[in-house]
Parts: sequence; structure tokens; C-alpha cells
Amino acid sequence: MAVIGVLIENKFEDSEYKKPAAAFKKARHKLVHLGVKKGTVKGETAGIKVKVEKAVSDVDAGDFDALFIPGGYSPDLLRSHDEVVAFVKQFAATGKPILFICHGAQLLITANLLKGRRVTGWKSIIQDIKNAGAKYRDQEVVKDGNFISSRCPADIPAFIKASLGKLNIEKGKRNLL
Amino acid sequence: MAVIGVLIENKFEDSEYKKPAAAFKKARHKLVHLGVKKGTVKGETAGIKVKVEKAVSDVDAGDFDALFIPGGYSPDLLRSHDEVVAFVKQFAATGKPILFICHGAQLLITANLLKGRRVTGWKSIIQDIKNAGAKYRDQEVVKDGNFISSRCPADIPAFIKASLGKLNIEKGKRNLL
Repeated sequence: MAVIGVLIENKFEDSEYKKPAAAFKKARHKLVHLGVKKGTVKGETAGIKVKVEKAVSDVDAGDFDALFIPGGYSPDLLRSHDEVVAFVKQFAATGKPILFICHGAQLLITANLLKGRRVTGWKSIIQDIKNAGAKYRDQEVVKDGNFISSRCPADIPAFIKASLGKLNIEKGKRNLL
Repeated sequence: MAVIGVLIENKFEDSEYKKPAAAFKKARHKLVHLGVKKGTVKGETAGIKVKVEKAVSDVDAGDFDALFIPGGYSPDLLRSHDEVVAFVKQFAATGKPILFICHGAQLLITANLLKGRRVTGWKSIIQDIKNAGAKYRDQEVVKDGNFISSRCPADIPAFIKASLGKLNIEKGKRNLL
């Protein structure tokens, strides 16, 4: 199964973390929570506590089969740290899946990864997505190569379905190696 | 003295509102707090409560001599409302001062107002500012025509000084009319 790096900080949107995380675990994928430093972070709306197991500066892109970026204000907090942005760039260069929802695209904007890509995200960041050179799509889930993106909590079921499908395809590729 | 419209929502950065607001009032300017709807909003770090006196949909750009946009997550919340973005565009067309700090520039990005302008803002939104076509400057305060911008709480004294200077120049203009 896939090892998924979850990029998370305080003020994440609880449902956008909790529901996909539960579905990924149920499908027997392994989650490793990554952040600026080891410790506990807390969700914005429901106050869920999540243990950050590793600092991004202590891991390598090769350690993971996919990245998952929940929304809320967590992505904005993460992208003010150069080492997080550098890690996202390093991971993106592998071409492996990046699954993001809501404000998650902010991290990819700062990492300069959206040019020419079809992407969706939360309403407030639509202009930022467009200005980054992406083709914004107002859909519950947008699939473009290794990128799976959704807009908001209401899109979570579609986000989970598309993400699990993508992880399965990648699993098939790994088995062929 | 100037009538300053303060664009504010929940999760504003308390110091970035409180200190400039106090300085503007001390200089005998009048503040009118504007938001999505009338009511009370609360600061992110210190929990200061601010009364929103008017909804932007109930005011006209002509009612104000300047706009002030404190940072925190207030600007991101405000820009998901079309009527707030429309009001900012309408006000910007008057050419009167817009004073913004930290995440404040986000509102101007969504309103498509930064192209070719010299602007600063909080670290996490630097790439968004650049992608919006602005010339990002890493300075405590950046003055470009009617725009006065600063990066973060540490810049507040410079932000206040430049803002008051700008309001004085505008006052001189009004007195000549």
C-alpha cells in the first residue's frame, strides 16, 4: 500500500483532514504526518488534535508515494516556511500524486507548481490559482496527471474517490517495476 | 479629517488593527468599520472585539476618504464575498488611499488591482503578490501612489507614519477643492 505524507499545521480544516485520512487508512494506506516540527497541531473548526510525526527537514521525497494537503489555514502557515516549500518542490519532481483540497493549492502556488495545470480550490484563492498560471475549474474534483484537487468540505466524497483511484493506479505501476 | 473605511472580518490580526486604528483616531480621523454584515467580529490572536457598523452592500465608495485593511485571516474571509471585492474595486477607482498590511493585499489581488504596482505583504503571500503582476518589495512600508502597504506587526510604526502622512496630503488636496 502507499505511504502518504500528510502536510499539516495548526488551523487545518478538521473535516478535510479527518474524512480523507480515515478513508485512506481504511484502504490500508499508511499516513505519516509531516510539518514544520514534530508535535501536536490542532484543527480550526473542531479542534481535532493531530500528531506531527516528522519534520519535513528530516524526511526525503523518496520516502513517500503520495502527498495529501488538507485545507483550512494550515497551508498558508506551512508555506511561510522555506523548508516546507522546498520539500513540496522536491516531491513534485518525482511525479507522484499530490492530493489537495480547499486552501491546499496555496502551498503549490508558493512552490511554483501550478503553471498550465488544471486545478480547483476554495473560492477565496481562485484568483491566486489563475494568477499562478493554472486553469481553474469549478468542479468537485479535478484530476490532472498527478494532481487531484477539490474545493471544499462538500467535495470530500468525490475527493476521496478520486484520490483512492489514483493511489490504486500508482500501486499497479509500482507492482510492475 | 478623513473618514476611513476599515474592512474587517473575524480572525483579523489584533495588533494590526488596534495600533493603526488608535493612531488614526488620535489624529482625529473617523473610522467606520465595514464588513459582510453588521455585527461583532473577533481578532485571531488576542480576541479583540470590533463592531462592524455597516455592511459593504449598504455603503458607497464616495462615503470614504480612505480604506484600511488589517491583516490576519480577515482579508481571506472577506474576499470570498463578491460584494466586498466589488466594493474594493469601486473604491480603488476613486484613486483615494488604500492602507493595507500583512494579508491585506489578498483582497486587492482578488479585486485585480495590483498589476504593475509596488507592494509588500506577509511572507506567505509573496508569490501571490508577484503572480498578480505586482512588484514585491521586502520593506517595512511601501508607498506607491494611493497604496501604502506593510508586511507584519513589526512594521506597524512605519505603516502608521506613512499612512498618516498620506492622509494629510489627501486632506490638503480636499481643502484646495
